[in-house]
Amino acid sequence: MLCKSGYHSESKAKEYKHVCKRACQRAVDRLKAGALAVEAVAAALIELEDSPFTNAGMGSNLNLSGEIECDASIMDGKSLHYGAVGSISGIKNPVVVANRLLSEAQKGKLSAGRIPPCFLVGRGAHDWAVSQGIPPCPSEKMATKFSLSAYKRNKRKMELAEKIDTGHKQTKKRRQSSENVSAVLSVRTLILSGLSSDHLARANQNAAHYGCGCWAENACNMNPYSTAVSTSGCGEHLIRTMLARECSAAMQSEDAHQALLEAMQNKFISSPFLASEDRVLGGVIVLRCCRCVEAQPSQNIQGILVEFLWSHTTESMCVGYMSAQDSKAKTHISRLPPGTIPGQSLAIEGGVCRLMSVVE
Amino acid sequence: MLCKSGYHSESKAKEYKHVCKRACQRAVDRLKAGALAVEAVAAALIELEDSPFTNAGMGSNLNLSGEIECDASIMDGKSLHYGAVGSISGIKNPVVVANRLLSEAQKGKLSAGRIPPCFLVGRGAHDWAVSQGIPPCPSEKMATKFSLSAYKRNKRKMELAEKIDTGHKQTKKRRQSSENVSAVLSVRTLILSGLSSDHLARANQNAAHYGCGCWAENACNMNPYSTAVSTSGCGEHLIRTMLARECSAAMQSEDAHQALLEAMQNKFISSPFLASEDRVLGGVIVLRCCRCVEAQPSQNIQGILVEFLWSHTTESMCVGYMSAQDSKAKTHISRLPPGTIPGQSLAIEGGVCRLMSVVE
Repeated sequence: MLCKSGYHSESKAKEYKHVCKRACQRAVDRLKAGALAVEAVAAALIELEDSPFTNAGMGSNLNLSGEIECDASIMDGKSLHYGAVGSISGIKNPVVVANRLLSEAQKGKLSAGRIPPCFLVGRGAHDWAVSQGIPPCPSEKMATKFSLSAYKRNKRKMELAEKIDTGHKQTKKRRQSSENVSAVLSVRTLILSGLSSDHLARANQNAAHYGCGCWAENACNMNPYSTAVSTSGCGEHLIRTMLARECSAAMQSEDAHQALLEAMQNKFISSPFLASEDRVLGGVIVLRCCRCVEAQPSQNIQGILVEFLWSHTTESMCVGYMSAQDSKAKTHISRLPPGTIPGQSLAIEGGVCRLMSVVE
Repeated sequence: MLCKSGYHSESKAKEYKHVCKRACQRAVDRLKAGALAVEAVAAALIELEDSPFTNAGMGSNLNLSGEIECDASIMDGKSLHYGAVGSISGIKNPVVVANRLLSEAQKGKLSAGRIPPCFLVGRGAHDWAVSQGIPPCPSEKMATKFSLSAYKRNKRKMELAEKIDTGHKQTKKRRQSSENVSAVLSVRTLILSGLSSDHLARANQNAAHYGCGCWAENACNMNPYSTAVSTSGCGEHLIRTMLARECSAAMQSEDAHQALLEAMQNKFISSPFLASEDRVLGGVIVLRCCRCVEAQPSQNIQGILVEFLWSHTTESMCVGYMSAQDSKAKTHISRLPPGTIPGQSLAIEGGVCRLMSVVE
């Protein structure tokens, strides 16, 4: 299950759907070949990072200095281990580095009792990746015609806005310029994420902050449901509301749809942590599952109840999902209800899938 | 109120106490001069960063490449805004950058509707600081004789341990080398933090991750207590348990001592997120306050009830605190009970202070 929130033009919708499908397929192929969930998630993410249409890896948006810096994080719901990189440059697939941090941490302590890192940033992240045998990739090879022209366009837009600001001496009116949020969103926050329902491992680009971009937690004594959550949207909004972790915690209550609706409304749109923001922009996909038994007159039927839902406050969100059973990836572009305001309203959708079998 | 967890030798205890006292004094001086809590906290942190005895700013430990990289974060409990820098080099006082991020974010959106960042890392953090007029400082000026010799000593120790590991081909026994944890702790995690009880602003070095190094939240409809929490210890352990935020949330229950004890036991030492760790190393200082009224036969007495507590699983923790009323900074080195094992047991202490006045 993958998502990508922000603004999706009709012309690009086809491409977004296509890359989501390919990524789902890649993950399912890996699962069928016996791979662990984290490996399947990483494989899906590599597909997304390699696509020039997504703001991750190849074709990422450039920062103000004209450089490409990427984030990635991955979490294993079983061991609750977590790996993330922030602002990494010169590595084609940042998720490979996040995944390596996760797997290295699972091996236990380093020499001299050092605790392995779970989060590396910048030059340190790059050097660690290379020391692990992950090949470097020149930044200029990661920019595309599209990302370069988007950079130039957005930089011009920013310079123009600053000129106007200075001209009007509107220093105190900065708060009012929020009508351009969606334009800026395209620069910084079109993100991608993938998750798997096996051991519930999760991976995500952007918002590598723990609890913000992704969360995965298997069922335990206290929690009846295994959950996996991925978020997408404005990094600052995701961080300050810890959206992924909040949604995961909310999903332990019985009615999944109601729980997600309330979490998005109370912990995101109306969050006290974002009280000064006029528009709160993000999207979330949630997958939860639990074992279930249905008693019938003559037999018991048991299985796994899988529910997946998505919700967003951005104008639209592209969602892709696939089950290993029917082997057909589905994609969907979810949009806010007509007449509602992005950042102040939300859309919520989802489905339930029961994988049942008869018990003797 | 300041803390510093890890291992404190008797010989250095005097220096640690001294710098904690100076930092407390600096914050109180600022408060008396009418400064906001965040400014007072930043002032205390600058004092700590400038001390060669603390692993923050001047005299910080060097990373494996022999460079100094610092972290700092600060949170304002009133606006719930947050500013942090991670792995920043070449800036004398990282807390000044974190504080600037906080204050810039409070001004609202940037040109072209861009959302101001709350967290910057590495080169980007350094360049942003310089663009804000914060002067760069050559890294070599930040190393001290002590930090350089500690670097050489620890590097030798690591190389030796790696040689032994290779010699014995003990690749699968990495988990067993935890007896050196306390030595390593001195390399990476002696951290410093400060907090104020005015608008409840908090600042912290290391673990710049949101929710991990510091947390501050003023009382609101749902929460009777204003809380400010600062943590110290092994960065990975603080991050994966979100210790600061968990302790803050726990402190809303009535018995502060019991609440902190349970939080440290259940959310830290026995955290499912650190199930594979044999020793969980950290410390926390908590400050909470609420308005209170005491009805007397002839009059009402109202005021503010301030409780401060600290707890740690490290061998020792240096705590400093000061109230603006009595103008005398107190410092204390808290130690684990004799015979208990660091990382598996905890110490907890604290006090209550009532600032009461008669109401007509």
